[in-house]
Amino acid sequence: MAEKWVTGVDLGGTTTKLAFLNEKGDIFHRWEIPTDTSEKGKAILPNIAKSIDGQLAALHWDKKDIAGIGIGVPGPVDMEAGVIYESVNIGWVQNYPVVDTLQQLTGLKVVIDNDANVAALGEMWKGAGEGSDDMVFVTLGTGVGGGIITGGDIVHGVKGAAGEIGHITVIPDGGAPCNCGKTGCLETVASATGVVRTAKKKIAAYSSPSTLKDLYSQAGSVTSKDVFDLAAAGDALANEVVDETAKYLGLALANVANTFNPEKIILGGGVSKAGDTLLNPLRTYFSKYAFTTVGKSTKLKLATLGNDAGVIGAAWLVLNKN
Amino acid sequence: MAEKWVTGVDLGGTTTKLAFLNEKGDIFHRWEIPTDTSEKGKAILPNIAKSIDGQLAALHWDKKDIAGIGIGVPGPVDMEAGVIYESVNIGWVQNYPVVDTLQQLTGLKVVIDNDANVAALGEMWKGAGEGSDDMVFVTLGTGVGGGIITGGDIVHGVKGAAGEIGHITVIPDGGAPCNCGKTGCLETVASATGVVRTAKKKIAAYSSPSTLKDLYSQAGSVTSKDVFDLAAAGDALANEVVDETAKYLGLALANVANTFNPEKIILGGGVSKAGDTLLNPLRTYFSKYAFTTVGKSTKLKLATLGNDAGVIGAAWLVLNKN
Repeated sequence: MAEKWVTGVDLGGTTTKLAFLNEKGDIFHRWEIPTDTSEKGKAILPNIAKSIDGQLAALHWDKKDIAGIGIGVPGPVDMEAGVIYESVNIGWVQNYPVVDTLQQLTGLKVVIDNDANVAALGEMWKGAGEGSDDMVFVTLGTGVGGGIITGGDIVHGVKGAAGEIGHITVIPDGGAPCNCGKTGCLETVASATGVVRTAKKKIAAYSSPSTLKDLYSQAGSVTSKDVFDLAAAGDALANEVVDETAKYLGLALANVANTFNPEKIILGGGVSKAGDTLLNPLRTYFSKYAFTTVGKSTKLKLATLGNDAGVIGAAWLVLNKN
Repeated sequence: MAEKWVTGVDLGGTTTKLAFLNEKGDIFHRWEIPTDTSEKGKAILPNIAKSIDGQLAALHWDKKDIAGIGIGVPGPVDMEAGVIYESVNIGWVQNYPVVDTLQQLTGLKVVIDNDANVAALGEMWKGAGEGSDDMVFVTLGTGVGGGIITGGDIVHGVKGAAGEIGHITVIPDGGAPCNCGKTGCLETVASATGVVRTAKKKIAAYSSPSTLKDLYSQAGSVTSKDVFDLAAAGDALANEVVDETAKYLGLALANVANTFNPEKIILGGGVSKAGDTLLNPLRTYFSKYAFTTVGKSTKLKLATLGNDAGVIGAAWLVLNKN
């Protein structure tokens, strides 16, 4: 091989995604393994190391052709120390030494960052943020995560908690409880779970006929995809749910933009698949709550890399960080 | 002289502050001139150049002993192009070429930034932020301004509007109109003007005895200083005003901190002179609205440089920017 390859790892609570990429960020080969969170996640890093060795052997590649491993992990990190402060989801406790451990297991250079930050870097390098030095990435999934990039690099903050956009308070009084211990966080209204919560609240109070209401009566549950699909089809109640979601998301993103004035705010994750059904009302609220210059200069865009953002951003780390 | 001197300029709407500083940021000599905003502010830069020449002559200094001029201006800037996009207050219209003009007038290197950013740099270098690479500066005066520092440098954003903390929306519906054209901005409640607005609203609705209410009845007006002084003295109504101010300011600053997780948020400007009367309730609301890690790691501090922050930060620009 003429050039070096890079390994990107995106460690999730149930599945770990891995890939070999070239130095331009093109994925040559991708695969997945389950994340074994038993016994405080002690097998996670050995499993990753074994899996990389196995794939290298199957491809008849030599380890010396690999420049290093970048890994995105689900929790706040101290990038320089190479540790994750804590990750409740996968069982790792205080200051788990990810970099040292994985380096010892593989003999390769290892660079770590938070999973949302790594996805942000992926979108900056090869996705919707391409060519943007100042951008914000927000992932609207089961939860809401974020990554902030200024001057082409991630902002970490003093304890790795920069980019906690999901925990911006959008309902100061009387908001729903959040997993983080606060109430009224953006995550309680703009995650898939939050959209369903808003839908249930509005269904209970709605007295007119509605397909969304009928669906809930029949099935006993609705998904955020149901809500957006029915809103796109014209259901008035579903549109009320989307409008409330868009209002709080627009408020939070406008305030992030009033602080950073990034070139782009990029939306990823399952909820962002609603596309224009979400983006159209979102842009209206964003303009309402943004400072004039900011509303004109900061653009809202959909992410383009989907599930590949993590491994691509992780590869960027290897090529750009020591 | 063994070392070079630096000129710091803090351009305000009525007064321009100037100083000669050494390379450690110590002020050797400071003076002021009025800001002549007539005829679209065309005399402002010539007056600054003449004033510097006059002071150099009086000190028997030579221009070659001056390393350059740093200048903070009241509006968003394009630092690299050396222009201010616009400054309504002082009459400068679109893309006013501050750096080129002042360089031609003085023959010296000139570096520009926004006034709140420059004050933030001053506090980072010699004030409450000393030793902090990641900090946020908020000035609570007639308006509310801000500067964001990550990795030891100012964040400007794509159109120079980063740090517009005063225009974070804290009242999404039914807030007071702001000078910026929006409603419900932090500036409408946390500036000196905003504190007075809240006081008047609460005085009108308050039926119990109150010194604040009596003062307003007698004088026909109150200042934000009156409100904080009476709150410190135990007046219940004044404390309600302070509590509402602290709530919205705490919400905005917690959300800025949830995004950046800076080491410090530094409060300057006239309203911050209330000290603990403001800081105590502010810390309570900040903790309520901040993500747990952020609430524990981001500290609220009072600025220490007062009116000198601008000229000191302007001097920093000369020494650290091309």
